[in-house]
Amino acid sequence: MYGLMMDRPLLISSILDFAERFHSATEVISREVDGSIHRTTWGGIARRARQLANALAALGVRAGDRVATIAWNNHRHLELYFAVSGMGAILHTINPRLSPEQLRYVVHHAEDTVLVFDSTFTKLAALAASFGVVKHFVALSEHAAASAEPGLAGALDYDTIVQAASADYEWPTFDERTASSLCYTSGTSGDPKGVLYSHRSTVLHCYAVAQADTLGLSARDVTLPVVPMFHVNAWGVPYAIASVGGKLVLPGPGLDGKSLLELIEHEQVSCLLGVPTVWMNLLGHLHAVGKRLTTVQKITIGGSACPPSMIEALEKEHGARVIHAWGMTETSPVGTVNMLLPKHALLDDAAQLAIKAKQGRPVFGIELRLIDEDGEVLPHDGQRSGHLQVRGPWVASAYFRREDAHDPAFTDGWFDTGDIATIDPDSYMQITDRAKDVIKSGGEWISSIDLENAAMSFPGVAQAAAIGVAHDKWQERPLLLVVPAPGKTLALEALRQHLETKLVKWWMPDAIEIIEALPLGATGKVLKRELRKRFASYQLPQ
Amino acid sequence: MYGLMMDRPLLISSILDFAERFHSATEVISREVDGSIHRTTWGGIARRARQLANALAALGVRAGDRVATIAWNNHRHLELYFAVSGMGAILHTINPRLSPEQLRYVVHHAEDTVLVFDSTFTKLAALAASFGVVKHFVALSEHAAASAEPGLAGALDYDTIVQAASADYEWPTFDERTASSLCYTSGTSGDPKGVLYSHRSTVLHCYAVAQADTLGLSARDVTLPVVPMFHVNAWGVPYAIASVGGKLVLPGPGLDGKSLLELIEHEQVSCLLGVPTVWMNLLGHLHAVGKRLTTVQKITIGGSACPPSMIEALEKEHGARVIHAWGMTETSPVGTVNMLLPKHALLDDAAQLAIKAKQGRPVFGIELRLIDEDGEVLPHDGQRSGHLQVRGPWVASAYFRREDAHDPAFTDGWFDTGDIATIDPDSYMQITDRAKDVIKSGGEWISSIDLENAAMSFPGVAQAAAIGVAHDKWQERPLLLVVPAPGKTLALEALRQHLETKLVKWWMPDAIEIIEALPLGATGKVLKRELRKRFASYQLPQ
Repeated sequence: MYGLMMDRPLLISSILDFAERFHSATEVISREVDGSIHRTTWGGIARRARQLANALAALGVRAGDRVATIAWNNHRHLELYFAVSGMGAILHTINPRLSPEQLRYVVHHAEDTVLVFDSTFTKLAALAASFGVVKHFVALSEHAAASAEPGLAGALDYDTIVQAASADYEWPTFDERTASSLCYTSGTSGDPKGVLYSHRSTVLHCYAVAQADTLGLSARDVTLPVVPMFHVNAWGVPYAIASVGGKLVLPGPGLDGKSLLELIEHEQVSCLLGVPTVWMNLLGHLHAVGKRLTTVQKITIGGSACPPSMIEALEKEHGARVIHAWGMTETSPVGTVNMLLPKHALLDDAAQLAIKAKQGRPVFGIELRLIDEDGEVLPHDGQRSGHLQVRGPWVASAYFRREDAHDPAFTDGWFDTGDIATIDPDSYMQITDRAKDVIKSGGEWISSIDLENAAMSFPGVAQAAAIGVAHDKWQERPLLLVVPAPGKTLALEALRQHLETKLVKWWMPDAIEIIEALPLGATGKVLKRELRKRFASYQLPQ
Repeated sequence: MYGLMMDRPLLISSILDFAERFHSATEVISREVDGSIHRTTWGGIARRARQLANALAALGVRAGDRVATIAWNNHRHLELYFAVSGMGAILHTINPRLSPEQLRYVVHHAEDTVLVFDSTFTKLAALAASFGVVKHFVALSEHAAASAEPGLAGALDYDTIVQAASADYEWPTFDERTASSLCYTSGTSGDPKGVLYSHRSTVLHCYAVAQADTLGLSARDVTLPVVPMFHVNAWGVPYAIASVGGKLVLPGPGLDGKSLLELIEHEQVSCLLGVPTVWMNLLGHLHAVGKRLTTVQKITIGGSACPPSMIEALEKEHGARVIHAWGMTETSPVGTVNMLLPKHALLDDAAQLAIKAKQGRPVFGIELRLIDEDGEVLPHDGQRSGHLQVRGPWVASAYFRREDAHDPAFTDGWFDTGDIATIDPDSYMQITDRAKDVIKSGGEWISSIDLENAAMSFPGVAQAAAIGVAHDKWQERPLLLVVPAPGKTLALEALRQHLETKLVKWWMPDAIEIIEALPLGATGKVLKRELRKRFASYQLPQ
């Protein structure tokens, strides 16, 4: 017997309709590519999104077509988010840090029919034009300069086509399982792999991230997502803030500490979200100019493990509550979120920090499990680490156009994250490594992340990476690579002594090397593959 | 083109599975019918729910069957919530305040196959036994006394059948639109009408109520739903607290101020939810014993309009934040929630209170509109009042077994709430009346609720009800009925002068009468129908 409740599909257009109907006057602020500030409202975004849908339809965009963007976080990208998915087409957000080969791959693989780009990325758009796949190019700004580029002579001007179009458009209704957007994981090896989200998965994720124990997104906050809209839908923040009717502040290209601080202070931002490197830059700038954050109440940090020292600095020095979270492109992305429980109030600062450094507890909808090398499910004892697997209604079931590839990452209805993790009895999950980065020493695993956190808690260490290097007796032993903070000289012996207070003896790196910089991938992650290649023949002291 | 996300149905069993897997040790506390305190955990609830599912299956309960409960908020009722819906059967929660005729009607109409009852309600169960519909009766406690009642000789003992059953049970997977539970609205007139919820609507509502801007339900709180589990699924709190892994405190029959305060203090309750009358009792008790609430941080108030004076007392004297919310059985129930916006911080106390007295803004998923007598949609200007209509995925589309009745409440995909309301430009909705209670004076509407709030803000008035009485010239004019606070004498002239400071002249009641008590319906609402009957021939001064 079926229930007797209204049959209303979960559609992205319903989020925008809701924002327009009930939060029309709430502000949406963007930094433009030229540095100026643009002010509009959810009502303005909704009206322009309808105009954009008409303009795209006039270009021939039909349900299921892929419309690609290479763009910063700004109001035009936000209009594209809602218009493209809302009309039944698929929003393909391209990461501008992709290599030319990767760009060629994704544009061909997605068969993008339209490519919309910010002026910063005109060269990338011109490169994409040379592939002969995309039918229409649309410049979000500086149209004249863009159309002077080879291959972009016919590029359209975004504002012109939007303003010329009628705002009279009714969002179509369709099956909530319809594809809505496409993100490629620019992994550290192999071709990028496409994750194809649905309206259902996006709306369910939207409900989840606005929960009090998740990211707690709220109309009572002014929210600034520094996490890029070209990276896993900016963690779903654009949808969720529309759904709660909150004021949204979009930083455009201004991701440096100075630009961010200016925007935070001017717009009285209370809620920030982004990856650790962004906060390192912001903390550096705050320190340099001798300022403190005064309006910020919470900072969600994800994308890679947040060093405990950063949590401490943000909470103690700047009075912001850090929400440590974990997710992947394949998980929409929010999987786990770290909130302390009432009982943790009794713990001292160090013990609280040890919990906050974990990636947190699963959000309802996400199930986690750990399996060992033999496929056995491990207990949640906080000790044993295993392969982290996940399932839920906003977790990918396959990669786009690789549905029949029998990918071992998708087995028995679970997605294997490629991470190694522990789960403690209170269900706090902690990533100890990427499966391919774990250092295998004498049949036991050494967590490269733990080594790196220990190193980064030493004054004068800006960044650290631990990799396994071949060893005759132990198979692999850890080599620690450290980048000194600008202007600092590292005393290796003092660092070694510091590590001895933090690590069990057999985890101590066999060698420490100072390097100038770590190689970073398209999403800012350290390319350990590159480091392993570079240090492949490194001679550890035997 | 479909997205490539996992196909996981939204099922109530997945909430319990999640709580068991990730929040197994979190406590669930209940006050038993005998006043003692029972302590278990979400792990314990999940295990017993599986045993219960086996026990019910052994009694012959199959998918789609209705299992009725007449029970307080306690751990056994919680087990029934999850087991009955989880196994694919339908949980029919019966309000013990139904009249014998209404009880007869709903048991026949629902065709309940099993009826489970708390010992407080043994007489009601015995009455139900006389209907010859229910096949099995199950006593939640005091089984010996229950089976001595006529018709209940064969009643089973709940704990005995649960403990005898295996905990080995896998929750079945089925279509998320499957019916999960059934609540009858014991309206103030006509036969009760059944609202048949689905797993989908329940899980979506569960996500919504745990949002930061909704009820903000959290694992960081200790939550005590005073709202009964026999009333619109206790506003979804049992599901939502399981989904966030929070500590749940269930008050059993102890709804008086003294019992509640004892439980709040002992379990360090931080989050309360219930109807205004409950808080009036609690405030009365706190005042009588000279105590203050010290652990409570938020109190959600719904079910009927919350008088501003109550909000003020709870916030100013007891330091709790009041969350004023609105919903109906037909809306699962949460429709709107009142949270102030950052801009409201600039307002003075009186202006803030005026906003807090409104029923709040719609939760994403719920659309509201106002229509006038001609069916025209009215603007959101905060001035014009109209018929409040609502739609969304957790709103009823029809009443159970009246699907073909062409009920005018369900027209054009909207549900007509029967309420008269305004919506202001910030989307705060305010109920000004029930459509049938509005006082029609010379073609204009007078809000009975506004009159009652004005009266209740006068010291010495405990309760108030305004009704329209026939008037030769104006069609209807207001008569105000007031119940003095215990031990107080009301000075009617002073009350009248007070009202003159609060109301426009033509809204002033033509007469005020003191009465001893207001007639209340099964859910604690004032039965204005009774008052109108009693005062039908009342002679207003002309």
